[in-house]
Amino acid sequence: MFRALQCFRSTGAVLVGASLTTVLQIRKVHMESVRKINVANFMAQPITPIETLEASNDIRVRMELMIMKIQHDFVRALEGEENFGKKFKVDRWERNEGGGGITCVIEGGDTFEKGGVNVSVVQGMLPPGAVQQMRARGKKLGDGELPFFAAGISCVIHPRNPYVPTIHFNYRYFELVEDDGSKMWWFGGGTDLTPYYYYEDDAEHFHKTLKEACDVHDKKFYPKYKKWCDDYFTITHRNETRGIGGIFFDDVDSPSLEECFQFVQTCAESVKPSYIPIVRKHKNDNYGDRERTWQLIRRGRYVEFNLIYDRGTKFGLYTPGSRVESILMSLPTLARWEYMHEPEPDTDEANLLKVTRNPVDWVSKLSS
Amino acid sequence: MFRALQCFRSTGAVLVGASLTTVLQIRKVHMESVRKINVANFMAQPITPIETLEASNDIRVRMELMIMKIQHDFVRALEGEENFGKKFKVDRWERNEGGGGITCVIEGGDTFEKGGVNVSVVQGMLPPGAVQQMRARGKKLGDGELPFFAAGISCVIHPRNPYVPTIHFNYRYFELVEDDGSKMWWFGGGTDLTPYYYYEDDAEHFHKTLKEACDVHDKKFYPKYKKWCDDYFTITHRNETRGIGGIFFDDVDSPSLEECFQFVQTCAESVKPSYIPIVRKHKNDNYGDRERTWQLIRRGRYVEFNLIYDRGTKFGLYTPGSRVESILMSLPTLARWEYMHEPEPDTDEANLLKVTRNPVDWVSKLSS
Repeated sequence: MFRALQCFRSTGAVLVGASLTTVLQIRKVHMESVRKINVANFMAQPITPIETLEASNDIRVRMELMIMKIQHDFVRALEGEENFGKKFKVDRWERNEGGGGITCVIEGGDTFEKGGVNVSVVQGMLPPGAVQQMRARGKKLGDGELPFFAAGISCVIHPRNPYVPTIHFNYRYFELVEDDGSKMWWFGGGTDLTPYYYYEDDAEHFHKTLKEACDVHDKKFYPKYKKWCDDYFTITHRNETRGIGGIFFDDVDSPSLEECFQFVQTCAESVKPSYIPIVRKHKNDNYGDRERTWQLIRRGRYVEFNLIYDRGTKFGLYTPGSRVESILMSLPTLARWEYMHEPEPDTDEANLLKVTRNPVDWVSKLSS
Repeated sequence: MFRALQCFRSTGAVLVGASLTTVLQIRKVHMESVRKINVANFMAQPITPIETLEASNDIRVRMELMIMKIQHDFVRALEGEENFGKKFKVDRWERNEGGGGITCVIEGGDTFEKGGVNVSVVQGMLPPGAVQQMRARGKKLGDGELPFFAAGISCVIHPRNPYVPTIHFNYRYFELVEDDGSKMWWFGGGTDLTPYYYYEDDAEHFHKTLKEACDVHDKKFYPKYKKWCDDYFTITHRNETRGIGGIFFDDVDSPSLEECFQFVQTCAESVKPSYIPIVRKHKNDNYGDRERTWQLIRRGRYVEFNLIYDRGTKFGLYTPGSRVESILMSLPTLARWEYMHEPEPDTDEANLLKVTRNPVDWVSKLSS
């Protein structure tokens, strides 16, 4: 029902030939109850009351339902890769200042050493520190605090086997009321992969899946957001990227709210097929101390990026009442730092570094 | 000779009764060669040419010689605590933009898991990003790049035994030429301790040693800089301090250059007696997995502080040509993150957290 109505709203064309009565009947259903929600399809009770979610078709509601579904589907898919039935722990939390979230965490799995898939739906006043983070991105905003709404899903999965890459994705919708009372809204997000060892066919599968998702909406998206991802996930002081990239975008607010939402939904739905086959392929590969040590050193770089550069982390830590444990879920169980570590030339470790120092041109490769 | 002359320069009083000939002889020696330098007393050849160091009594030269001596003495004292003769590795490096440093690193010692004692003497143009870091501290500076000079010693030591605390200290002298051509100078620094288990007598020894060093110069220093330390080393998002504090100060430029230098020198000299006895007392204590895991979790907090809040780290990473490996030496070999970790009440681990959430009032305790 939800999907059917969405289709109706975004492309009136499907109704060509339908009688006026039919249209009015659909509208009536829509007015009384947009949809029926089955909480069993989510990891927990949604943040917004069920009645509101069933009765409204507001973008806030549609975003919340979309991210709840993505969370559930991805968590169940990951659990399916655990060889001994390890499950995610589910924490539903509320925020004094308004809203809350659902944090799903796995620790000590045999496939996944640590991972989190988190949904948050929050509103309130954005403090000057967090406003500052946004102004740095070119938004013209006042100096004081501003009313905001944000709904998003964010996820980092650190597998145990060094041959399985870490994945991160985040999709979010944001509203801000400016000093003059006008409302701004935009979407942001992306999916990116951080392998410890570089397999070209895995990288190709990953980028191809993201490109196909983007291409559904606009052929210009993948080239643009692939580059944005390489730029964003750069560890400047190391002169290398965090991993092999993917897509990243922010401040997306055109051509229309509906089209932006559809694009973000397609991206979010592409996470599972982009990643799960790679997990399945390598999760039982043999490895030893050498590979584990290298994995932990690369995880140290992951920590450096997240704590020094990541705007999402900074934004979270600057937002009062934010849930620190959900934000810092992205940090691995273990990370390692060695002074002046540099792999021997022509090893598999050195090969990975090459790719992080000179990102592969997947735009050309995938279109040739 | 160096010390004697310093004494002469700072307190002319010692010369009461000396004949004019003696004074002129001393001055002559001073003019021709202020001092004779024995490089064997340092960890490496100093950054500034020996002839300059021997001929000048400029504050830059005196600071460089002081930090070189502190580096040598502290490194040798730490090596003395290694049970199987592990030594520090010494890297002398030069910076294209001007100056250089000496990085001394220990990794995999039986007493010290990882540690660095670094000296740097650098000059050049300070880029806008780094100037910004200083403006945030209340200095009124322009928007562009500014000529600067900095000489400092910084050190972090992460012992292997969880009953031995991590120590950090940093003492630095800074000069900046403003847009109008006027020169600003100031000193900064501090010493602080991060135990994994709280022993009140160790904490008292540590704070008492620092207080005595401060009291030589001004009884107001310890109370002021103890509080500054607690405030500075706060992990805001965790609502706890990094450790049990110590002293911290910045922008110190009064009453005179000479007195500031003498104060900083006394502080730097107090590091060894504040720390080495604690290492010796606990380095062979028995411990198991529980203590090691707790130590690694606290090291995770150390990483959070250093990468998110520490101004020295940020300043370093924003300075072009800075030596990243020397800056990030402060990170431990291993760090651990667990979701929602909280020790059981009334355990030794919970006891440490209490102290980090409510710093001990050493000012009252030590004066009573």
